[in-house]
Amino acid sequence: MTKGQFITLEGVDGVGKSTVVPNIEQVLHSHSIPYFITREPGGTPLAEGIRKLLLSEWEETVTAEAELFLMFAARAQHVAEVIKPRLEAGTWVICERFTDASFAYQGGGRNLPLGLVARLAEAVHAEYWPDLTVYLDIDVETALQRRAHRTQDRIEKETIDFFEFARSTYLSLAEKESRIVKIDASVPLAELTRSVSQVVQNFVSQRS
Amino acid sequence: MTKGQFITLEGVDGVGKSTVVPNIEQVLHSHSIPYFITREPGGTPLAEGIRKLLLSEWEETVTAEAELFLMFAARAQHVAEVIKPRLEAGTWVICERFTDASFAYQGGGRNLPLGLVARLAEAVHAEYWPDLTVYLDIDVETALQRRAHRTQDRIEKETIDFFEFARSTYLSLAEKESRIVKIDASVPLAELTRSVSQVVQNFVSQRS
Repeated sequence: MTKGQFITLEGVDGVGKSTVVPNIEQVLHSHSIPYFITREPGGTPLAEGIRKLLLSEWEETVTAEAELFLMFAARAQHVAEVIKPRLEAGTWVICERFTDASFAYQGGGRNLPLGLVARLAEAVHAEYWPDLTVYLDIDVETALQRRAHRTQDRIEKETIDFFEFARSTYLSLAEKESRIVKIDASVPLAELTRSVSQVVQNFVSQRS
Repeated sequence: MTKGQFITLEGVDGVGKSTVVPNIEQVLHSHSIPYFITREPGGTPLAEGIRKLLLSEWEETVTAEAELFLMFAARAQHVAEVIKPRLEAGTWVICERFTDASFAYQGGGRNLPLGLVARLAEAVHAEYWPDLTVYLDIDVETALQRRAHRTQDRIEKETIDFFEFARSTYLSLAEKESRIVKIDASVPLAELTRSVSQVVQNFVSQRS
């Protein structure tokens, strides 16, 4: 049995991650590849409980460390219960947000050491790094406008500076890691979805 | 302003930690030392929310990593909101369970690397290690009998082996760390409380 491939979607809130999921599905479907769609934080009952704590408003300040540890506690459950068994069974997994989001948000945005984030990632999914990461890049102001009509959770309400630090961390990861493909998400939607489909199409051609 | 002293109480479930708290209080009170009593996991609204997730029964298996990260997420909030401000204001803090419990339970009991536990501790409370840790030691079978009449939470329901590993980790910490005072908790209650009072009395004499 060939292991499934693990594809993640990354980018700041409002960039259009959910919008392009159907385009990824279409490519996999056209190649008769079995796939499973999921997103973080969440994906199991305990992880969804953690998600609720993470995105709620609290009277106390949520420390950067608590935010990071909650993200990885949810991720540990998600990997063990959902991602790993499916990949091992040959199903491809498409996940909105994964550890790169922790580098960007808790590392870049909250200024925690990237080495700490890497240590947690190693503990949780040393053998399950994404095979392909589609990073949708956009300037922070435009992303903010795109999500302005939605209800904002605790993290989405952060300052422009927070998202600038997150974006610049995503950009340096994309420079460093060959699994990450950066796509300009400021273009019209039709063009964006074409680019995403093309990237996934190329990946499928290489891997099957 | 002199910083308050940080006293923690450790030992496996059923050993008698809550029972001896009033004896510690009595010593501090007799010296007119302002103190605050707390316990982990918990101590803030978010940390209590995490406690609930940690001690509940789930259909999924709670991974060792998720358990460790949830403990430290709660601890990050507890230190930032409760422990640190009080110590800085000169109040002594008495806390039932702290990072030694993570070494013992998630490190020893769940077999996670002690280095990972230490890395999280460094991130959360590098400057706030306990000044005195009273470790109540007892054989695991006796502790089990002592808590048999109570409702058992998810962790308390663990196997004898789990608690044996926790105890042996506590014992090696106690050998290594001079802040940890080991007390034999298998003796009659009157004798145990006398020993605890004496240890705290000695500590107060040294520190004030």
